[in-house]
Amino acid sequence: MPDSRDGDITRRGFLVKAGQGLAVTQALGALATSASAQQVPDPPGRKAGWAIVGLGSLAINQILPAFAKCEKSRVVALVSGHPEKARKLAARYGVDPKRIYDYEVDVIYIVLPNGMHAEYTVRGHQAGKHVLSEKPMANTPADCQAMIEAARKASRKLMVAYRCRYEPFNQEMIRMAREQELGPVKVILADHGFSIGDPTQWRLKKALAGGGSMMDIGIYSLQAARYVTGEEPVEINAMSYTTPGDERFKEVEEATNFQLRFPSGVLANCSSSYGYSGQNRYRVVTTKGWFELEPATGYSGLRMRVRRGNAIEERTLPVRDHFALEMDHMSECVMDGKDPLTPGEEGLRDIRLIMAVYEAAQSGKTVKV
Amino acid sequence: MPDSRDGDITRRGFLVKAGQGLAVTQALGALATSASAQQVPDPPGRKAGWAIVGLGSLAINQILPAFAKCEKSRVVALVSGHPEKARKLAARYGVDPKRIYDYEVDVIYIVLPNGMHAEYTVRGHQAGKHVLSEKPMANTPADCQAMIEAARKASRKLMVAYRCRYEPFNQEMIRMAREQELGPVKVILADHGFSIGDPTQWRLKKALAGGGSMMDIGIYSLQAARYVTGEEPVEINAMSYTTPGDERFKEVEEATNFQLRFPSGVLANCSSSYGYSGQNRYRVVTTKGWFELEPATGYSGLRMRVRRGNAIEERTLPVRDHFALEMDHMSECVMDGKDPLTPGEEGLRDIRLIMAVYEAAQSGKTVKV
Repeated sequence: MPDSRDGDITRRGFLVKAGQGLAVTQALGALATSASAQQVPDPPGRKAGWAIVGLGSLAINQILPAFAKCEKSRVVALVSGHPEKARKLAARYGVDPKRIYDYEVDVIYIVLPNGMHAEYTVRGHQAGKHVLSEKPMANTPADCQAMIEAARKASRKLMVAYRCRYEPFNQEMIRMAREQELGPVKVILADHGFSIGDPTQWRLKKALAGGGSMMDIGIYSLQAARYVTGEEPVEINAMSYTTPGDERFKEVEEATNFQLRFPSGVLANCSSSYGYSGQNRYRVVTTKGWFELEPATGYSGLRMRVRRGNAIEERTLPVRDHFALEMDHMSECVMDGKDPLTPGEEGLRDIRLIMAVYEAAQSGKTVKV
Repeated sequence: MPDSRDGDITRRGFLVKAGQGLAVTQALGALATSASAQQVPDPPGRKAGWAIVGLGSLAINQILPAFAKCEKSRVVALVSGHPEKARKLAARYGVDPKRIYDYEVDVIYIVLPNGMHAEYTVRGHQAGKHVLSEKPMANTPADCQAMIEAARKASRKLMVAYRCRYEPFNQEMIRMAREQELGPVKVILADHGFSIGDPTQWRLKKALAGGGSMMDIGIYSLQAARYVTGEEPVEINAMSYTTPGDERFKEVEEATNFQLRFPSGVLANCSSSYGYSGQNRYRVVTTKGWFELEPATGYSGLRMRVRRGNAIEERTLPVRDHFALEMDHMSECVMDGKDPLTPGEEGLRDIRLIMAVYEAAQSGKTVKV
């Protein structure tokens, strides 16, 4: 990402590249505005203005609807390479196509393909904006570092959209592990994947996705093992597989299974795949029982089961919109000058670990990290 | 096991070492008898006579009660180093302490600690008996080979007690996989372990157990991956962990997690532990769904769930006594001159693979097998 830190990349440059039609014109003023007021905490009731960069299915089906449930966040700008799509969504979500951009954008939410996160995050920061980047943070550790550096230079917040850290079920799993409600954690078993469809989609292009199932969905297993333990792995084993001749997997791997060792002795066995039928679960096995989520990290419908002795109970928790919780956390950080729970540094850790997973799979050796 | 193949190990020698009290005297005639009639198929209603060697909790709580459910097997001899225990069990199960041994024993069921399987199997074969050995077959591939060779020389059947191969739930999992009821198998996730108690038990002694959780309970995960796919793994990764200072694990490992790659591309992620709360499950993930057992390999109470699309159904199957099914299979092989489904060669394969798992864990390298 060296080019995005060049002096010739102006705020206008960001926009010209980010969108190529109506939405660009709309967002121009917003992104080009000076943004110095965010250091002062806002009065109650103030909502941070958000620009959504990238209008794919995640943005359309999850993120934009979530604003209705946000208390501290509102959408004020849409940036897309597809002006017609942006116009329709602006109309639906009350985004004024002509007037509102030039003063309202505080936060840019990057929902572009992985390989574009770094470039647009850096440009967003250079335009003086706070940035929430979707996961995985970027394709490489160097890109992550460029993003962190851009946020630091601009004195703006950079957060990675690790949605699960902000919703009640996963938070309860973390609490139970940390408080040793069922004794110390011994093993974590985490499986994430799905059968990927359209072979032309960006997730299957190396340049845009950075990698295969491990980057996109295996990261949930990795995250779960890390946030449940609160530790960083020190050893990694891995095994990848790609079906020969499958047209979906010409550029990225189909499946990567990996093992982690944590300093406390906790071991994790994790799977990820684009080739098997939907898996979305993790179980935390302790000395006295286990607790699990299945589904664990989907957008909704999470279920928790807890086994203590011979009894298995289902625990119910409030159903909240994950995206609204995540976005409001970012808004709160922006408005109150706090640091995000999942800053750029957290995203960088995962990308480094994912690179180590790939290295382990390729070398056939335990990678020490 | 070279000594057990020496000419000076007589049939009487087997018994003198096998038990040290009343049970020995009782079993003497039975084991010393010539056993040539088993080549001729028996008429319907005939039950093969069994000697049970080793009267630990498995024999007392599972195997002896199972004879009541057997159609082709009956217990006629008990061999134990604890004469009082053998006397009580003989009385309970109608084993005549004085008369019945000298002509009735067809099969010796070795339920001793792992490290004693080879010696007593070889002696049993040398005494002209068929042998069913508990799993794991022995501590080393060399011991397994000695057992196979002893059976061959004696022209007697040798079977390893892989109980799950003979019960309906696991057989249904195999059928679903092989018939691709939900499409081709992609990944198998198998977890077996429990929190082991008494630190003085034989399972925690290297010489008697051969290893830790991997040998005793991880073998169920390994077996499941093998019998579901019907393939032999070609690559193995592994990671072990033992809690420092835990008095239970002075000689054997606490936990071993391992990964398998099969020739067809199926990957397996497996865990085994003596340190976590009971795990007993495996899930077979295919392109169109998954099917799982949890509990998967316990003595009873198995449950099967099948997911196809978004629907999860529980499948119920007849509840049968696993031990009775397994023992009757052995009796049938003995009486009809058929080869067991799980012969010594099958036990040897697992022991070789377990050695490869340990090698992978110790070397930090993928072991190709």
